[in-house]
Amino acid sequence: MKDFNSKKYNGIHLIGDLFECGIDDFLVKKSGLTNLQKKIEKLIKVSGLEVLGSYFHFFSKNAITGVIALAESHVTFHTWPEQSYVSIDIFVCNYSRDNSTSAHELFNVLSKDIFKSKKIKKQLINR
Amino acid sequence: MKDFNSKKYNGIHLIGDLFECGIDDFLVKKSGLTNLQKKIEKLIKVSGLEVLGSYFHFFSKNAITGVIALAESHVTFHTWPEQSYVSIDIFVCNYSRDNSTSAHELFNVLSKDIFKSKKIKKQLINR
Repeated sequence: MKDFNSKKYNGIHLIGDLFECGIDDFLVKKSGLTNLQKKIEKLIKVSGLEVLGSYFHFFSKNAITGVIALAESHVTFHTWPEQSYVSIDIFVCNYSRDNSTSAHELFNVLSKDIFKSKKIKKQLINR
Repeated sequence: MKDFNSKKYNGIHLIGDLFECGIDDFLVKKSGLTNLQKKIEKLIKVSGLEVLGSYFHFFSKNAITGVIALAESHVTFHTWPEQSYVSIDIFVCNYSRDNSTSAHELFNVLSKDIFKSKKIKKQLINR
């Protein structure tokens, strides 16, 4: 194993910086945290990826952080409601199959349907 | 909030692809998972960052995944022992103070002291 090009199971990492997000009530109230967690984990499963476990945290100022371990690697997000900004990361390896399509589909649904971003900066890193 | 340049609390995301890792016994036996978790969380604290919660998973074939939520954003890693490869991500926002030095110090200690990589590919993304 000398470098990326010779690595057997290359994956893709989607890095999203989501601006002008529509932060709904369920995102900014502590009581809605469990529902949000269930909703995001269901969307991950629907996209064809497998959730192993997760940790979600509610901050003061109504910000939320979520880290989700997948069989295929991970999903993370962090919200800054006061700036209408959310960061998301979706990293999937392609160990058992090519998960690239699942990753892109999940990126779209999280950025548009969950965080309702009007200005999406998306970067793709092969790793 | 129009774009990255006008975002108030810019952070840095360090992306590590670690090749030629020295995978010790404690990394590849299920019994060592709790110790590894404690060790990594202690190193995060020593670097000046705050652990909120985490989820670690042990796969068959002795691979490990860890996702750690920080007050400053997150740390994640995934090991592929059969390829002597480990991916790590350290994302810190600079909300309350500049955490860049902490992130770089943590990157060094994880890649060298924990995963014992001899070939480190490090990328920095401002976000």
